[in-house]
Amino acid sequence: MSMNENAVSIFALGGMNEIGKNMYAIECANEIILIDCGNKFPDESLLGIDLIIPDISYLLENKNKVKALIVTHGHEDHIGGIPYLLKKLNVPIYATRFTLGLIELKLKEHKLLSESELVEIDSQSSLQFQDISVKFFKVTHSIPDCLGIVFETPEGKIVHTGDFKFDLTPARNEYSDIHTMAEIGKEGVLLLLSESTNAERRGLTPSEQAVGEHVVEAFMKADRKVIVSTFASNVSRVQQVVDACIKTNRKLALLGRSMVNVIEVAMERGYLQVPEGMMIDQNEINELPPEKVTILCTGSQGEPMAALARLSTGNFRGVDVLPDDTVIFAAGPIPGNERNVTSIVNNFFTIGANVIYGSGTTSGMHVSGHGYQEDLKLMLTLMKPKYFIPIHGEYRMLHHHRLLAESVGVESGHTFIMNNGDVVDINDSIARQTRKIPAGNTFVDGLGVGDVGDMVLRDRKQLSEDGMLVIVVTLSKTEKKLLSSPDVISRGFVYVKDSEQLQKDLNRLIAKTVNELLEENKYQWNVMKQTLKKSVGQFLFTQIKRKPMILPIIIEA
Amino acid sequence: MSMNENAVSIFALGGMNEIGKNMYAIECANEIILIDCGNKFPDESLLGIDLIIPDISYLLENKNKVKALIVTHGHEDHIGGIPYLLKKLNVPIYATRFTLGLIELKLKEHKLLSESELVEIDSQSSLQFQDISVKFFKVTHSIPDCLGIVFETPEGKIVHTGDFKFDLTPARNEYSDIHTMAEIGKEGVLLLLSESTNAERRGLTPSEQAVGEHVVEAFMKADRKVIVSTFASNVSRVQQVVDACIKTNRKLALLGRSMVNVIEVAMERGYLQVPEGMMIDQNEINELPPEKVTILCTGSQGEPMAALARLSTGNFRGVDVLPDDTVIFAAGPIPGNERNVTSIVNNFFTIGANVIYGSGTTSGMHVSGHGYQEDLKLMLTLMKPKYFIPIHGEYRMLHHHRLLAESVGVESGHTFIMNNGDVVDINDSIARQTRKIPAGNTFVDGLGVGDVGDMVLRDRKQLSEDGMLVIVVTLSKTEKKLLSSPDVISRGFVYVKDSEQLQKDLNRLIAKTVNELLEENKYQWNVMKQTLKKSVGQFLFTQIKRKPMILPIIIEA
Repeated sequence: MSMNENAVSIFALGGMNEIGKNMYAIECANEIILIDCGNKFPDESLLGIDLIIPDISYLLENKNKVKALIVTHGHEDHIGGIPYLLKKLNVPIYATRFTLGLIELKLKEHKLLSESELVEIDSQSSLQFQDISVKFFKVTHSIPDCLGIVFETPEGKIVHTGDFKFDLTPARNEYSDIHTMAEIGKEGVLLLLSESTNAERRGLTPSEQAVGEHVVEAFMKADRKVIVSTFASNVSRVQQVVDACIKTNRKLALLGRSMVNVIEVAMERGYLQVPEGMMIDQNEINELPPEKVTILCTGSQGEPMAALARLSTGNFRGVDVLPDDTVIFAAGPIPGNERNVTSIVNNFFTIGANVIYGSGTTSGMHVSGHGYQEDLKLMLTLMKPKYFIPIHGEYRMLHHHRLLAESVGVESGHTFIMNNGDVVDINDSIARQTRKIPAGNTFVDGLGVGDVGDMVLRDRKQLSEDGMLVIVVTLSKTEKKLLSSPDVISRGFVYVKDSEQLQKDLNRLIAKTVNELLEENKYQWNVMKQTLKKSVGQFLFTQIKRKPMILPIIIEA
Repeated sequence: MSMNENAVSIFALGGMNEIGKNMYAIECANEIILIDCGNKFPDESLLGIDLIIPDISYLLENKNKVKALIVTHGHEDHIGGIPYLLKKLNVPIYATRFTLGLIELKLKEHKLLSESELVEIDSQSSLQFQDISVKFFKVTHSIPDCLGIVFETPEGKIVHTGDFKFDLTPARNEYSDIHTMAEIGKEGVLLLLSESTNAERRGLTPSEQAVGEHVVEAFMKADRKVIVSTFASNVSRVQQVVDACIKTNRKLALLGRSMVNVIEVAMERGYLQVPEGMMIDQNEINELPPEKVTILCTGSQGEPMAALARLSTGNFRGVDVLPDDTVIFAAGPIPGNERNVTSIVNNFFTIGANVIYGSGTTSGMHVSGHGYQEDLKLMLTLMKPKYFIPIHGEYRMLHHHRLLAESVGVESGHTFIMNNGDVVDINDSIARQTRKIPAGNTFVDGLGVGDVGDMVLRDRKQLSEDGMLVIVVTLSKTEKKLLSSPDVISRGFVYVKDSEQLQKDLNRLIAKTVNELLEENKYQWNVMKQTLKKSVGQFLFTQIKRKPMILPIIIEA
């Protein structure tokens, strides 16, 4: 098809068929506008990987077209990739006051703050780029100051919801601006991109207020220390903990670096109201009677090094959880974290604490920040888009979101379920999914970005399962013979020294293999190495059914 | 305290503060009777470990006292350790007809069937040992032919429930024998050991019949192939799938070795009724119209090598899942397996199949085989034990089970929450938890049993995260100098060859380190190795924040 100069393209570099590393882009003739730049945490199969970020090679090829990164909110899966992006591509960042606060924390860590261009916006702002102008609308989520975005493009309105739920009684004044949404829908939306996290869940997301009631109830019952763990960035929930402290006349101590940092941002910027003198330092905890103390800490996901996990094993210096203390998990476990969380729950019960957590029957101490099916249908109804792209979810979520869209009137065939890198081109207000651009995962391991590939991971997997064996063979330069009996060193395999017989057999086998090759005048090291790998590998597999990595080293002297 | 010759002791070698590797024991002056011998699957932290089984060193020290292993039912966490036990200790095994069938499958695999002594029992059997006599009662669970056990000991009755739920409308005639339970309780129970898996869940476990109704409903709606995945051993559920096939006039094909083997046992022994000619071979699947075919397969837990996972990626030779086929997950994911399951769900949706699975809102295709709180309270009420030991659960479950026991009248202080190896001694019908016996995890890795310890696992962890670096240094025997430039081989670290600079810097650093040592007349290899590890390690950490395992190899020639 021939593209007119007004054609607009939409694609994702992350967030499609996955939860995490959200990054979406709107492109037209002269510019690319980016939406969010998140990271994702690896599953167990990605051994040693610290983070996953979007592959941005397409953006680097089009450096000059990239005009802006607009950030919808401050969660890791929307901002975690920013430092790595900025190191390659210095683009101005537009975000609300609170979101900027969290971005600045990251940029400080990476020593990038000074050279980056941060522009504060709010729901009333409007931005004018060459072909595209941008407006915003407030949405409710589990972090303050969240935006939906309206792109006025040559082809028409494109709306990106950000992460959202509808909550008519939010804990703070974080209302969804339904009136503006209705207006946008009325003006006509060409394409809607809407998040799909809870597209499988029936009904409407419960209100954050429900959590507050349960928190107060638990505080009332507690007659010793209360330890609450939640996401530091969930300021509404933190505010409800603060309010419960006021009601029950308790002081509040913060544990965990990220909790301290984020709460500081929230207080400085006016998103969290804490009465004068309520905050105490962690070393004051033991000076107060337990019934006067609340501890707010990180680690609700069971992170082994976080404050909560260390408290549960008595490894947090200066602070002890004691019998009859109350421990509240005020956050649900993210899929994959269940085991880490429940092992901490077990620890606290062993101490004799009262533990309030969601399991079997849920505790009421958590509600989702992502809209359920009725929320998603309401958004689709308000926007009445001609075309729809479900974003921010695994395939099953995108699939269900499509069904929801069709149930409220989006024409079948007008929904595009895309992979990262798939492009939808809109030309004369007809949308087609036609081409692909490069997209994928970039691995961060230590200071290395993208230097760990499949081969390194395959090696790590083999090493992790059966360890390795180094075989050192020293040959004489002059005569073709072994200079000394071969040497075998193993790690992560089995104590070869524990099993002397195995050790003996191995040495015999290696010597035999090498001598046979020499007799056949086969000196090529690579042949010798391959043969050793093969014979030793087969021997070990028949002996104990393990396949360690075998590294033959041949030295001529 | 002085023990009279009638004293009875109770301990667990597995199943306390864990789900899995159940093994309990009743000991008195002249004999030890074992209950169950299960295995447990390792979590991600136990790299390369295939299985975990109980440490049986205490039993080996008391070989001659061990008179019997009684098996309550045929689940892996109750029979999976038997082959390893028998290799060390040939003890007669008592189990019901179906349970024996599954045990025999295992013993065949391990080539132990001929030399093992298997005794078939049923709920009416009674066994007489020297000091202890044993009776049984039927319980309902998610596998046929389950037993609870009554031990008549010199001190009084000790009851072990096995795994159970109460189901007044089971899918087959697997009724709990409430009348016998009531009788036992009436006669007086000194000590009850009862399972705790669902002690956190409120209410009563739903009936298996509910699943049948949902299955039929789904079959009625399906107009192409139906693929059902469940536990092969859940014969009641399999029977309900068979019944749905009858109602909807479909043939049934089995995929997956364990499915075929277990169904064969169930049919041979009369636990599963399949009409003549309903079963078809997998190569007949494509010869029939899709609406006439049902496939029953393994892999409901997302096991990557099982039939279901391979079907979801089109890697099952000869069988394809196609658009509009119906895939039913008729089993809930065991905690820890959620991710593997949902990735398969995603695959099937991508194919275009209708997938029925439990997520967000549950599908009704699974009910638990373990009693909820009301089931557990009913058991405690029926038995009215003087003492209570909650078994089969993590600490939080044991803790909640204790609260349930006290809520129905067990005296506080009469419940013992034990670790594996803790012993409760009953002396003159007073129970005390006093001493410990050796207990713990034995790791199975390939053919090795117990040969992988903490050090090997630590090495595997380091290797898995940052790989390794082998440094080969060749020194001259005669003069103290390097014979050639050092050689560095890395695996799972980073392509050193990709980063030539790093390679150069490493070689320079190694040469420098070695030469300095030589100048200081430090020839001791261990000193040289330690120094090399230290300097190279520090260098790499500052360069790229990784800590690969470093193996220096020094050769004199």
